[in-house]
Amino acid sequence: MRDTSTGHSPVTVIGLGLMGRALAEAFLAAGHPTTVWNRSADKADALVARGAVLAASVEDAVTASPLTVVCVSDYEAVHKLLDPVGDGLAGRTVVNLTSGTTTQARETAEWAAGRGADYLDGAIMAIPVGIGTADGLILHSGPRAVFDAHEATLRTLGGDTTYLGEDHGLSALYDTAMLGLMWSLLNGFLHGAALVGTAKVDAAAFAPIARKLIATVSEWTVDYSRQIDRGEYAAEDSTIRTHLGAMEHVLHESEAAGINTELPRFVKALAERAVAAGHAEDGYAAMIGQFRAAG
Amino acid sequence: MRDTSTGHSPVTVIGLGLMGRALAEAFLAAGHPTTVWNRSADKADALVARGAVLAASVEDAVTASPLTVVCVSDYEAVHKLLDPVGDGLAGRTVVNLTSGTTTQARETAEWAAGRGADYLDGAIMAIPVGIGTADGLILHSGPRAVFDAHEATLRTLGGDTTYLGEDHGLSALYDTAMLGLMWSLLNGFLHGAALVGTAKVDAAAFAPIARKLIATVSEWTVDYSRQIDRGEYAAEDSTIRTHLGAMEHVLHESEAAGINTELPRFVKALAERAVAAGHAEDGYAAMIGQFRAAG
Ligand SMILES: NC(=O)c1ccc[n+]([C@@H]2O[C@H](COP(=O)([O-])OP(=O)(O)OC[C@H]3O[C@@H](n4cnc5c(N)ncnc54)[C@H](OP(=O)(O)O)[C@@H]3O)[C@@H](O)[C@H]2O)c1
Ligand SMILES: NC(=O)c1ccc[n+]([C@@H]2O[C@H](COP(=O)([O-])OP(=O)(O)OC[C@H]3O[C@@H](n4cnc5c(N)ncnc54)[C@H](OP(=O)(O)O)[C@@H]3O)[C@@H](O)[C@H]2O)c1
Repeated sequence: MRDTSTGHSPVTVIGLGLMGRALAEAFLAAGHPTTVWNRSADKADALVARGAVLAASVEDAVTASPLTVVCVSDYEAVHKLLDPVGDGLAGRTVVNLTSGTTTQARETAEWAAGRGADYLDGAIMAIPVGIGTADGLILHSGPRAVFDAHEATLRTLGGDTTYLGEDHGLSALYDTAMLGLMWSLLNGFLHGAALVGTAKVDAAAFAPIARKLIATVSEWTVDYSRQIDRGEYAAEDSTIRTHLGAMEHVLHESEAAGINTELPRFVKALAERAVAAGHAEDGYAAMIGQFRAAG
Repeated sequence: MRDTSTGHSPVTVIGLGLMGRALAEAFLAAGHPTTVWNRSADKADALVARGAVLAASVEDAVTASPLTVVCVSDYEAVHKLLDPVGDGLAGRTVVNLTSGTTTQARETAEWAAGRGADYLDGAIMAIPVGIGTADGLILHSGPRAVFDAHEATLRTLGGDTTYLGEDHGLSALYDTAMLGLMWSLLNGFLHGAALVGTAKVDAAAFAPIARKLIATVSEWTVDYSRQIDRGEYAAEDSTIRTHLGAMEHVLHESEAAGINTELPRFVKALAERAVAAGHAEDGYAAMIGQFRAAG
């Protein structure tokens, strides 16, 4: 049941929503014999026209290929569809690209083991148009051997297919971590856009300059990560004390501009706690302590 | 008093802290006759060894060149140094790269006008090693003609020297907006690092994947900006309702992992308000309303 071909092993895609259709299209475009199934069968029409085989049942779908990729709304739907298949999964591989929690991922891995199926849990860090492109980032976690066996096929879905580790919960955990980062970055951008907007500066004028800062700060995360892993936070650029001074200043500007001050207040409160915890002379990476602490 | 040379017009730098020294070095390296002054004169030693002239007083310093760049700790220090110079500033240009508030920038512009001096207020979006490099980002605001007259000289300090507009407060305003974005991005990264850390994932393993997301989200700000400027927030990717679902999920993962939940709670509270304000089916850019509102 391993990929032995040059990338044309049969695959099955279950779930043909916006994302599932993009996955099936990428497999078809790469020449994989592709079986598909969806609750609403009409979503398969365009894929069938391009050569996909529409299975009559979920069981027919999973038994048509050594590898089945599932991408539906949530894990409840995954189980609703796959639980009845029973022994049909034995000896096959299921790669579940449905978004969910670490607990759901780990429980589904146990469930798959009980059915004798190999299981990878994945997270798609791309929108449908990114599927099948060199940049398409898809995270996988679960047994290394299972990933290795199907890596070439999975890479069809995204050039940036990345294996995270044996713990099936890792994809969901990274997904969660990345989402939090995404909103935080976007909120920071929106706060900035609101602030410069008070001086009648267009967001479109702010964005190119903001993007330069984003690129710079992104680079800092490399050194900050090393510091976090070592647990040593020498201030290579600015100390948290210095940051705190600037934070007060940003808070005052936001107040003076009459915009929302929650973001600068939140930022400042965290830094004040880091100072109280003895990190005044450390670099910003020492703030990790604030995020690790329950609260 | 304009730059008429091929970039070798005389310049003065007042303030030789970490940043001021980098500024003076960049001028010297580019061949500008450079006069310097600092409260603690010994900080000029290395610059003098490289050809700088150490002025005996602030007045001697500003009258030595048509253009004086000031970079000291704060605006209080700027005024302490320049107020006594009086008429010495008339007909000359002062570029103040000291960090401060929009109010300080605008007040200092008025003060300079009262002395008959041309004035630009700037903000350095770089660390000292970035000064004099192609990427060095320095923002300037004030009269366009003053910037144009000295642009070639100012560009010596950073290849990414950028003119923002006539309002002298703009550099400080952008600076503030960028700082808020910086902390928000860093906090999002640290929250993510703390989260994956609970599964014994090193921050150094998280960083490269996080950086891909950062680059992707940075691209989104281009379209989001256009939406903000048009005031139309059609969901081109995901709706705020969908984001909110994922936010609850990120909050639960953070709780389950036993890490700090303030960031996901904050993110979620803002999105809930946007939904309450009728933006459930809009894209994330509609969140700008939350940041514009006082609170
Ligand atoms: N779209 C994106 O940009 C994106 C990005 C990253 C991750 N994801 C993740 O990918 C997964 C799918 O997203 P999508 O955008 O494809 O969503 P979608 O367009 O809403 O499609 C949902 C799919 O799930 C199926 N489904 C839902 N409940 C079901 C049930 N009870 N029984 C059987 N089938 C059921 C739907 O079948 P019907 O067609 O019959 O309704 C459809 O195939 C989600 O977990 C999402 O978080 C999406
Ligand atoms: N360093 C950076 O990475 C960076 C980045 C962006 C912006 N900036 C901004 O650049 C400015 C200077 O920063 P820096 O890093 O150079 O700081 P710094 O190393 O602490 O130097 C401060 C400078 O200000 C002078 N000074 C302070 N108070 C004074 C007073 N009352 N009278 C006369 N001189 C006084 C100091 O003179 P003495 O030497 O006699 O103490 C010194 O030259 C600040 O506004 C900072 O926010 C710095």
